[in-house]
Amino acid sequence: MKRYNVGIVGATGLVGRKILEILVERDFPIQNLFLFASSRSHGKVITCGPYSVSVEGLNDDSFKDKHLDFVLFSAGKEASHHYAPLAAEAGAIVVDNSSCWRMDPDVPLVVAEVNPEDAFKHQGIIANPNCSTIQSVLPLKGILDKYGLDRVSYTTYQAVSGAGIKGIEDLKEQKQAHFPHHIHKNILPHIDAFDEDGYTFEEKKMIEETRKILHLPNLKVTATTVRVPIENTHAIAINASLSKPFELNELETVLEAYQGLQIIKPYPTSEMADGQDDVLIGRIRKDPTLPNSVHIWCVADNIRKGAATNTVQIAELFL
Amino acid sequence: MKRYNVGIVGATGLVGRKILEILVERDFPIQNLFLFASSRSHGKVITCGPYSVSVEGLNDDSFKDKHLDFVLFSAGKEASHHYAPLAAEAGAIVVDNSSCWRMDPDVPLVVAEVNPEDAFKHQGIIANPNCSTIQSVLPLKGILDKYGLDRVSYTTYQAVSGAGIKGIEDLKEQKQAHFPHHIHKNILPHIDAFDEDGYTFEEKKMIEETRKILHLPNLKVTATTVRVPIENTHAIAINASLSKPFELNELETVLEAYQGLQIIKPYPTSEMADGQDDVLIGRIRKDPTLPNSVHIWCVADNIRKGAATNTVQIAELFL
Repeated sequence: MKRYNVGIVGATGLVGRKILEILVERDFPIQNLFLFASSRSHGKVITCGPYSVSVEGLNDDSFKDKHLDFVLFSAGKEASHHYAPLAAEAGAIVVDNSSCWRMDPDVPLVVAEVNPEDAFKHQGIIANPNCSTIQSVLPLKGILDKYGLDRVSYTTYQAVSGAGIKGIEDLKEQKQAHFPHHIHKNILPHIDAFDEDGYTFEEKKMIEETRKILHLPNLKVTATTVRVPIENTHAIAINASLSKPFELNELETVLEAYQGLQIIKPYPTSEMADGQDDVLIGRIRKDPTLPNSVHIWCVADNIRKGAATNTVQIAELFL
Repeated sequence: MKRYNVGIVGATGLVGRKILEILVERDFPIQNLFLFASSRSHGKVITCGPYSVSVEGLNDDSFKDKHLDFVLFSAGKEASHHYAPLAAEAGAIVVDNSSCWRMDPDVPLVVAEVNPEDAFKHQGIIANPNCSTIQSVLPLKGILDKYGLDRVSYTTYQAVSGAGIKGIEDLKEQKQAHFPHHIHKNILPHIDAFDEDGYTFEEKKMIEETRKILHLPNLKVTATTVRVPIENTHAIAINASLSKPFELNELETVLEAYQGLQIIKPYPTSEMADGQDDVLIGRIRKDPTLPNSVHIWCVADNIRKGAATNTVQIAELFL
């Protein structure tokens, strides 16, 4: 079996470490493994499974002469903006976790179960969607394929791990360093900065990325994204309007058959989704206030399926 | 000034104690104060402000010969079902916090700022609405009066104090005694039991009580009610469709002028609402996916405005 040279950029972060864990878990065929982070972490040794690798401080020459096949980025928007093109120029397929390239028309935005075919249109960079978007589009694609889709409304319950190690520290140490207010006894309808129309950029990401992944540029999508005081897993209250009438039990059969999706009755808790790669849904019920509409409760591990797992799954498409 | 004989049933509970606190805070003109609870608490002395009162174990004769003007109930549905009619027969005006009488056509369901006139149609019992409903109908009534109202969708973030002292213990002691799952690191889309159509009775309460309070029996209302791991204050993501076009700044002016309502920009946190009687709203923005629609983030102290304060405010209507 062919083996590949793989780099992880942001290897010391929450998602970067999880990417390495998942590469090992899934037995990704690695020839040589390279871990990159800021110069602060240069020389730090990270051990996972059979690998024990010294972190390299990232610079413009980092990707040269390494014959990298895949570079998996999770180091924030600025690092991706500068370094992802360098990795692509060096011949690697980049899978990028930041929001930097997602809406670039030349960059595919891929959820492995939903639009794998898009990945093959890449020009060096493939974007991994926002965590909340990834888990939501699985049931929505199942709906779209069978019934069509007219409108989506998202209301989210997002864990602090979505803000990385610093977010978890704020919750655990009951301090306020990362979030705009204390999070340990608060509910904050505020993730990312505010745009002029009063929506946050987190909400804009969910709206725009849903349209791009589902290839429905005019889909009506709205969102309210909210940080809640739990460590891990995002829950999304999805309200979807289908293009035609449906029966609940038929819809459940459709969703149950969808890859990567599990129905848990009466509902999945956050604890159930923690550590899982599947997206868990429940509380599927009709919304009689809008035509052909349904409520779905959707929970997933935002660090795994919402970030690291989907990144690795995208790379696996090319094996 | 006339003074009144006041009884509190459920005086040892979370809401019962808060009712007493609020009577004292607001200088309610009390002549004689009677505290009732189960026989377990008989003889327990409760002190608040100028009052130091021995709790009486409740029985069928409790309300006799006391010339009670008001009896404020917060002892659960079963106690209200049995004892509220006895208190009313003894000549008192009952204000009941349980769900027992809310949908009874002969019982007014009142939010002090929203439909105070309904209180005067009572036949002895007046019902205090569900906590999540109370805070939500303030902005909705402001909207209704100016623009009309076609549809409401609620998605809630409800604190454990809504489940009383036992709910708080589950969160603080990280145990699972009261809730169906651990709550201290969980998000549970499950409050009250499930009805046959997959909605919970908490959701049914929000739907039916909103219609009754606003005198809109055919209003389209849907809800997803969710328990989150914070001690106090409920947050509700309200999505409302108005009957005609609106400008955001005009709508804000209308809501700002509404009694008991405060706009906090960009948004109120749970901490800001804790200990307050006003309902705090923010993140008011258009929802372009439905005609004439708006998102509102609405936070309130569920034990104060959502229960005890509104109960006392209803009694004050009769002073």
